[in-house]
Amino acid sequence: MNEKVNNIGNAVQDYYPDDFSWCYGCGRLNEHGLQIKTRWDGDETVTEYLPRPEHMAIPGYVYGGLAASLIDCHSTGSGSLALYRQAGHELGDDAPVPRCVTASLKTEFLKPTPLGEKIVIRGRITQLGQRKAVVQSELSVAGVVCVRGEVVVVVAPESMLRRK
Amino acid sequence: MNEKVNNIGNAVQDYYPDDFSWCYGCGRLNEHGLQIKTRWDGDETVTEYLPRPEHMAIPGYVYGGLAASLIDCHSTGSGSLALYRQAGHELGDDAPVPRCVTASLKTEFLKPTPLGEKIVIRGRITQLGQRKAVVQSELSVAGVVCVRGEVVVVVAPESMLRRK
Repeated sequence: MNEKVNNIGNAVQDYYPDDFSWCYGCGRLNEHGLQIKTRWDGDETVTEYLPRPEHMAIPGYVYGGLAASLIDCHSTGSGSLALYRQAGHELGDDAPVPRCVTASLKTEFLKPTPLGEKIVIRGRITQLGQRKAVVQSELSVAGVVCVRGEVVVVVAPESMLRRK
Repeated sequence: MNEKVNNIGNAVQDYYPDDFSWCYGCGRLNEHGLQIKTRWDGDETVTEYLPRPEHMAIPGYVYGGLAASLIDCHSTGSGSLALYRQAGHELGDDAPVPRCVTASLKTEFLKPTPLGEKIVIRGRITQLGQRKAVVQSELSVAGVVCVRGEVVVVVAPESMLRRK
């Protein structure tokens, strides 16, 4: 699924512990999900995704919930990458990659997102704490920015694993 | 799909023109989508949805993108209901129901949303213009509020229909 655009190596989602790899948006083990991949590109983070035909708002345009979902998981992935790098690690090290969850998500829809071409989301880490990051992102299609996102992510609390 | 929770009559999505009924989140004609339904309950708007098992973040919890998607489409539906009522109409009248799209979406994740039970979203219209509405919502499961949303919606511009 989306191998053409997502097979870009060293994606943080490929390093999440199995227990944290079931997310509909970004879990590699969720066969029904979007399976997005987020990686570093210099100091920016990048996620690419080719929407399914049914991901429409009206014919020809992507529905807003997909844009929000992509920005959401792109941001948790970006936060994980940033916290891991801050700790002195790069993907492939033995240390476990931290798994972030979303505290707040803001999306601003600047213009309709065309459906049928690859979506690219580029993120910048604008704040970084010990267990928290703020990620600002732009979602674009064919170089045109359609949606802006600002997401606060935090390292998943241990209590989230107790319900399993 | 979700007939048990969504078969509550007089949902605004059942009155959208066919051209506007393809949305993955709320279009009655999108067989792959969520097909949510939004209705008045007094002065509040209500949407109910039973997530699919794959809509998980980690096992036991709903992924944030679904919560954002539901709040998004719930808000466009709520805006349509409010603008229609403001114009002196109720669902079933001959006048076409306005179709809103999202200008901005904010979601605040107060606590993890449990997976497996019905999600209820209740909305209040906090601003209403001629072609714009602001909708504040609470998403809850079993009476516990898990996510808060604030969404600005506007009537879909004619230009969105030209791409079809």
